[in-house]
Amino acid sequence: MVEENEILSKILRYSDPYAALEESVRVRRDGLSIGNDFYLTKHPLIVSLGKASHKMAKWAIEKFENAKVVSVSLGEKTPGVENILSTHPNVSENSVRAALRISELINSDDYDLLLFLISGGASAMVENPAIPLEDYIRINYRLIRSGLDIWKINTVRKHLSLVKGGRMFSSTKKQVVSLIVSDVPGDDVSTIGGGITAPDPTSYHDAIRIAERIGDNQLKNFLLKVQAELGETPKELKNVRNYIILNNFKVLSRLANELSNSFILGSELQGEAVEAGKFIASIVNSIHDYKVPHKSPATLLLGGEPDVTVRGKGVGGRNSELGIGFITTVRKGVNYGLIAFATDGIDGNSDYAGVSLGDMWVDEVDVKDYLESSNTYAYFEVNNRCIKTGSTGTNVNNIYIVYIK
Amino acid sequence: MVEENEILSKILRYSDPYAALEESVRVRRDGLSIGNDFYLTKHPLIVSLGKASHKMAKWAIEKFENAKVVSVSLGEKTPGVENILSTHPNVSENSVRAALRISELINSDDYDLLLFLISGGASAMVENPAIPLEDYIRINYRLIRSGLDIWKINTVRKHLSLVKGGRMFSSTKKQVVSLIVSDVPGDDVSTIGGGITAPDPTSYHDAIRIAERIGDNQLKNFLLKVQAELGETPKELKNVRNYIILNNFKVLSRLANELSNSFILGSELQGEAVEAGKFIASIVNSIHDYKVPHKSPATLLLGGEPDVTVRGKGVGGRNSELGIGFITTVRKGVNYGLIAFATDGIDGNSDYAGVSLGDMWVDEVDVKDYLESSNTYAYFEVNNRCIKTGSTGTNVNNIYIVYIK
Repeated sequence: MVEENEILSKILRYSDPYAALEESVRVRRDGLSIGNDFYLTKHPLIVSLGKASHKMAKWAIEKFENAKVVSVSLGEKTPGVENILSTHPNVSENSVRAALRISELINSDDYDLLLFLISGGASAMVENPAIPLEDYIRINYRLIRSGLDIWKINTVRKHLSLVKGGRMFSSTKKQVVSLIVSDVPGDDVSTIGGGITAPDPTSYHDAIRIAERIGDNQLKNFLLKVQAELGETPKELKNVRNYIILNNFKVLSRLANELSNSFILGSELQGEAVEAGKFIASIVNSIHDYKVPHKSPATLLLGGEPDVTVRGKGVGGRNSELGIGFITTVRKGVNYGLIAFATDGIDGNSDYAGVSLGDMWVDEVDVKDYLESSNTYAYFEVNNRCIKTGSTGTNVNNIYIVYIK
Repeated sequence: MVEENEILSKILRYSDPYAALEESVRVRRDGLSIGNDFYLTKHPLIVSLGKASHKMAKWAIEKFENAKVVSVSLGEKTPGVENILSTHPNVSENSVRAALRISELINSDDYDLLLFLISGGASAMVENPAIPLEDYIRINYRLIRSGLDIWKINTVRKHLSLVKGGRMFSSTKKQVVSLIVSDVPGDDVSTIGGGITAPDPTSYHDAIRIAERIGDNQLKNFLLKVQAELGETPKELKNVRNYIILNNFKVLSRLANELSNSFILGSELQGEAVEAGKFIASIVNSIHDYKVPHKSPATLLLGGEPDVTVRGKGVGGRNSELGIGFITTVRKGVNYGLIAFATDGIDGNSDYAGVSLGDMWVDEVDVKDYLESSNTYAYFEVNNRCIKTGSTGTNVNNIYIVYIK
């Protein structure tokens, strides 16, 4: 297996949004080309939003000579651009201020092309609810805990918003181009960043049915009211084009090209993280015992966003919990290496990005207390297995690399 | 995809212990050959144990002319053999009676070869504790809930037993051959059926450390007492040979040969069943979106024994819970078929063997109540998706077949 540090630097390189923009987009004096598409522009308005906003705004200000560049970030300021501070994962007054400022710039008409640079987190960072903010926050909180999938949650959100679901572009006929770093499995552009630059395939009828389903009458009444005031969301945005320039799968593919005997198991991992770790270990055991789904030595690549059910007040995240599940299930003596890494550099409520494991085989009883107190990083701290990078300025979810000798 | 009924009949055929014995063993007038090994025998003593004991005893009585055949079963009686009724998963007075009768026959010396036919469940069905039965039962209960792996649980059990860990064979120098239908991932012969015909690679020292680890002083004292009385378990059984004639992987391999575009993901699935279902669906989503780890159309084969955390008093099992996890996670519109099947015919506390699903995509909120009451078969009953076979007389764990268009 290649060195841990070498793998980590590869992951960081391949998940870097600046590099992805450089590779996907050619900026010329008179415009920009993406693949076979060309867009004329001499003085674009460029709006960078999400966890990768700083790096994407940096690319924009460096590449365009006469651009107005705005970056909505969680703190990082990019020199030469208008920086707006906002919040994530909760919508706040700052999110509203960001939305108002962007709408103002769009309405100014002082540009010939509107370029959006979108990454995960954009949804909460830019929002202007059509209902009182405190009600929106309550409804959002309820939705997140409802057991509804993200598609349905967004269906409701878009129908309570003055900016989402394409409403932000109702006042302009200019060409809009959106370059997207996706953190959503399947890369549905109407879900990434809350679908800020995508037409809305859903309707008030859909949103109201969802409100009925979770039995939230206040929400239903709000939806009826907003529908009466604003009418349906746009079902078509002829002047908007969306491009996925980077996602988890692209990172995995590039890693797979460089790692020997590698195979990608998938890039859309879901489910409880500790159980996902057991599942991955089960597959490792079968590689070891039966040479399926791949003969050994093998490098298994996987990505996605498993869940964590928080049970205690300790320090933990998806990747430390996945690591715990893995080491309780991989068969004793199987020679492996596991890197579990959050590409944004922050796993759960920890300061760590993930864990790097090998030569660990334990019983569930050994890790029970750590799991029950959601304190799984404490276990790996003792064993000196934590990875620390600090915030990386990107987000293509988590990457799991398992080497089996 | 081939028809559901056709697949089910294939699974049943390939997991049939009678057929596996016919294929693995040639019985001649003067002995039996297994692969390249030949054993002389004219009047063997044949002991069939476990969930497949009836079918294996039936094979024995049909193939051998001068054999004494004993079958320890959970109820099924095989004509022409000595039938002993026992219990599973709990050790009982019947288990002790079965052990005593088998030891008596071994000591009789009235045979020229001892042939064991072992399948899952044998461990509880034949046991003679060296400590009072009620204490053994209490300790066993504690061990199962300890979070220790099966290897460590068996380490303790073997050191409390008058028959396990090879002790049953201390009184004979005759050739012992054991033909095993494995229900244990990795096929460790010292674990399958409690390691009844395997030498014990573990020691009292190991068992006592385990007792200390779970803080059970009474257990520790029992171990010290039994050690003083019986001495160490045999570390070598020169006259015993073990053969795995059937396991989950062999069934998957034969299915894979017959199903188009198929690949085996593994045969040793562990972890919480509902989460395993989500994991499998994540992989299906990636097959659909990115053609990894296999291009579509594809048939994914998987086997093993996921866990179920029982939360309510409803009717459910591994396979119905796995099915629920799957349908909440597979992306809407992905064209799939899923068969989740317990080869012993009984999933959890239900009368069903599993579920056969397709065209179902639901939100977690839709199935929440069923999961919380552990009543997942009720969900599939309404939708007419349950598979019923009744007890099949074999056990190579569970088989999962997913077709992705």
